[in-house]
Amino acid sequence: MAPTLDLNCDMGESFGAWRMGEDAAMLELVTSANVACGFHAGDPVVMRRTIRDARAAGVRVGAHPSFADLYGFGRRRISGERPEDLETQLIYQIVAMQGICALEGHAMTHVKFHGALNNMAAEDADLAALCARAVKAVDPALALVAMPHTEAERAALRAGLRVAREIYADRSYTPEGRLTARSLPGAVIHDPEASAAQVLAMVLEGHIPCSDGSRLPVEADTLCIHGDTPGAVEIARALRARLEAAGVEIAPFAPS
Amino acid sequence: MAPTLDLNCDMGESFGAWRMGEDAAMLELVTSANVACGFHAGDPVVMRRTIRDARAAGVRVGAHPSFADLYGFGRRRISGERPEDLETQLIYQIVAMQGICALEGHAMTHVKFHGALNNMAAEDADLAALCARAVKAVDPALALVAMPHTEAERAALRAGLRVAREIYADRSYTPEGRLTARSLPGAVIHDPEASAAQVLAMVLEGHIPCSDGSRLPVEADTLCIHGDTPGAVEIARALRARLEAAGVEIAPFAPS
Amino acid sequence: MAPTLDLNCDMGESFGAWRMGEDAAMLELVTSANVACGFHAGDPVVMRRTIRDARAAGVRVGAHPSFADLYGFGRRRISGERPEDLETQLIYQIVAMQGICALEGHAMTHVKFHGALNNMAAEDADLAALCARAVKAVDPALALVAMPHTEAERAALRAGLRVAREIYADRSYTPEGRLTARSLPGAVIHDPEASAAQVLAMVLEGHIPCSDGSRLPVEADTLCIHGDTPGAVEIARALRARLEAAGVEIAPFAPS
Amino acid sequence: MAPTLDLNCDMGESFGAWRMGEDAAMLELVTSANVACGFHAGDPVVMRRTIRDARAAGVRVGAHPSFADLYGFGRRRISGERPEDLETQLIYQIVAMQGICALEGHAMTHVKFHGALNNMAAEDADLAALCARAVKAVDPALALVAMPHTEAERAALRAGLRVAREIYADRSYTPEGRLTARSLPGAVIHDPEASAAQVLAMVLEGHIPCSDGSRLPVEADTLCIHGDTPGAVEIARALRARLEAAGVEIAPFAPS
Repeated sequence: MAPTLDLNCDMGESFGAWRMGEDAAMLELVTSANVACGFHAGDPVVMRRTIRDARAAGVRVGAHPSFADLYGFGRRRISGERPEDLETQLIYQIVAMQGICALEGHAMTHVKFHGALNNMAAEDADLAALCARAVKAVDPALALVAMPHTEAERAALRAGLRVAREIYADRSYTPEGRLTARSLPGAVIHDPEASAAQVLAMVLEGHIPCSDGSRLPVEADTLCIHGDTPGAVEIARALRARLEAAGVEIAPFAPS
Repeated sequence: MAPTLDLNCDMGESFGAWRMGEDAAMLELVTSANVACGFHAGDPVVMRRTIRDARAAGVRVGAHPSFADLYGFGRRRISGERPEDLETQLIYQIVAMQGICALEGHAMTHVKFHGALNNMAAEDADLAALCARAVKAVDPALALVAMPHTEAERAALRAGLRVAREIYADRSYTPEGRLTARSLPGAVIHDPEASAAQVLAMVLEGHIPCSDGSRLPVEADTLCIHGDTPGAVEIARALRARLEAAGVEIAPFAPS
Repeated sequence: MAPTLDLNCDMGESFGAWRMGEDAAMLELVTSANVACGFHAGDPVVMRRTIRDARAAGVRVGAHPSFADLYGFGRRRISGERPEDLETQLIYQIVAMQGICALEGHAMTHVKFHGALNNMAAEDADLAALCARAVKAVDPALALVAMPHTEAERAALRAGLRVAREIYADRSYTPEGRLTARSLPGAVIHDPEASAAQVLAMVLEGHIPCSDGSRLPVEADTLCIHGDTPGAVEIARALRARLEAAGVEIAPFAPS
Repeated sequence: MAPTLDLNCDMGESFGAWRMGEDAAMLELVTSANVACGFHAGDPVVMRRTIRDARAAGVRVGAHPSFADLYGFGRRRISGERPEDLETQLIYQIVAMQGICALEGHAMTHVKFHGALNNMAAEDADLAALCARAVKAVDPALALVAMPHTEAERAALRAGLRVAREIYADRSYTPEGRLTARSLPGAVIHDPEASAAQVLAMVLEGHIPCSDGSRLPVEADTLCIHGDTPGAVEIARALRARLEAAGVEIAPFAPS
């Protein structure tokens, strides 16, 4: 049986008059779309159109909630909020997304947290537990997209949520299984062949090739595809072709 | 059988650190709460708390959608938007409210549009039809709170929606059944007895006493209770007592 | 002496993570930049960078104030605000722009109102007077960019402000000197030669060629260059070359 | 010569339709107002009115800049922004405030940073230096309100800025001269006499009475008066009377 891999991409990150990303092109390449929920990007019109387009393209959709931070595009690290307030903000975003999906007849399958919140939840067990509670409060059948070996993954499993383990093609890994900080040399993998090789090691051989030469076990479910960098579409297209050529079937991650 | 009247009040209009209205006191007096949906006021935390408090107080809840206009509190008249975009913005608000209500186990029963949007939909048949479509798209069983003799009422009926006809205690009526413009003399009724008398004429006798002495027929379902003016709670309490003393049963408007 | 014409373009309309327009390319083509002030687009970082870039390119800058309407990009028509509040909002934008300009050592020379506000002020004498008062309150030496034959022009002159009369290359004119509504046939001039011919008629011959064949007198000071439409840079470059070839000197509009 | 003390209070923290604080009453009690600049609270209308009212009351005004965080009222701790972007955001707020002050004929005398930003700058030397640079960029003659024994004070002095050393009446101090964390017992001083005694020790005797019984030297310039807590006006009035009775002259902090 061929190994399968989901390709996920953040979408619906336009806002009002401003465009972001190449959603139309990306919908032809990926199998799951994480749709911004209006707190870091997106608005009702963008959300609805993105869900419709994803349905038409046969691409699954999930919520992509964030800190309430439109100005910072959810990239600013925010703390000091009452945890129950943050949890309610996340629940709101997932619920609103769920409602629009229901209206458009396209079931929401997963949640992937955005930007700084996602990064912080990878490292902070309390925040990760809060995020998992928010998902579960809306629908315990939702999958949570999380990097393996993070607090986010552990919290999701502890909450009884299904986890879609997410891997990266263009970022190197520390021996702990985290992404190398962008400020360090070798953090970003620019060579397409090296990117593909890293993914294939994870998907076909089941291990993360860490930057020090060591290996960590991994069951890869979904690959993060960037949509808002220059040349993103071409890079994604080439990577997908390379993975398929190596025998990987590109398909949505397994239902629970 | 005693005539019944619903009392509705806008609530959940705080935002972030800012408080608005005396929601706790009003929940003891009214039978329906129109909850702001974050576009002119309210935020996820306020929405959820308001729905919880309403459920605990046995008060029904509805969505209170608005133009996207936080700075103007939804009181600015806005035009020039693409109609389908405005419709999606309204659908979003109603859907999000519905989702939080479902989560809190308190069914949403109605929609009342807010501020400038509500005023404009009373006069503009196209806008009224758009508003009715937005309600129906989310749930055709929702009641739409609308003033009798307005385009809003007509559009709701045409769409097959149930209408909760709304009356005012503290505003005088033109011969056409509209509220007298605030800029004109006699627009606001300050005398509590005159307010009560106007409501009783509408509820017990079935007619609107217009400013020129004429009468218009009316089937009153719900009375608008203001919550953000000085002395609002005392005025509401006195009016409710006066209506009950006259034999009016204060109760939610009839289900469809 | 060669006739001169200023070319003005709206700039600095990015916001946070979102990009809008091709400001760098436009700065090489135009002589005046109208910089968004954060109310419909722009933010402090974008404003400051735009002013710096304009100074480096030798392009004059003006404020480009709007209704407070980030979500609608200032394109929604808004009314019902207290006039003194709107005036203060406009003053604030012009003052903030003036302050950043002073800090960057690049004097602000003019004001051009944005979008729906600009359109409404062209037709509404009261709103036009309010806009002129806002400019004058900040600095009576500022020029106001306005279309000839509009309430905006009249109000500016009445207030004693210098007016930079603005013409359009790609829009046809009604016999009253207004732009033909976009919903009508022939509103937009797509042919570059026809665009250039219209501008040359206005600059060299001093009249507006109206859609019914009639003519209106005009003293053209500045030409509106669009920066956010597809192919905007190429169109602007070709138009500028065509005007220069016809003997028009492209230069900032005359100081008062 | 009588010792003097400035009383400062945050003001202008209303937003749109929402009211915050008892500014009118506070203007009769304090000598310096820190005016919100629209990033955590305030808007152009509120800013201008606050400056006018302060001028009419003979109260000095300063800018009260914040992180861009309206939803969180500037109380959320935010990091991860590019330092030069944050600096520009702060400069923008101070410049806009300066411009409105100039228009209203009331000179801006100082800057006090708000909420989470102020707390973080007290502890973080880099952030404190950034804040000091922002003040200096606008006007090196502005005083910076800062707590003694903090990074904020050190950075301001290093930048050559005048510092108005700020003390608290209702918070106890650690042996390092910081405010005891609110989560710890004894953090808040509820007894009015104890509050007054603490202030008098600082003003008349020149030392901070720390929670462990030790003392730190202090030259107190200005006392922080809270304006948005229940009973704030009465507490401030009583404290001011108590200080005056003890021979302290309430007056603006000395000009440079």
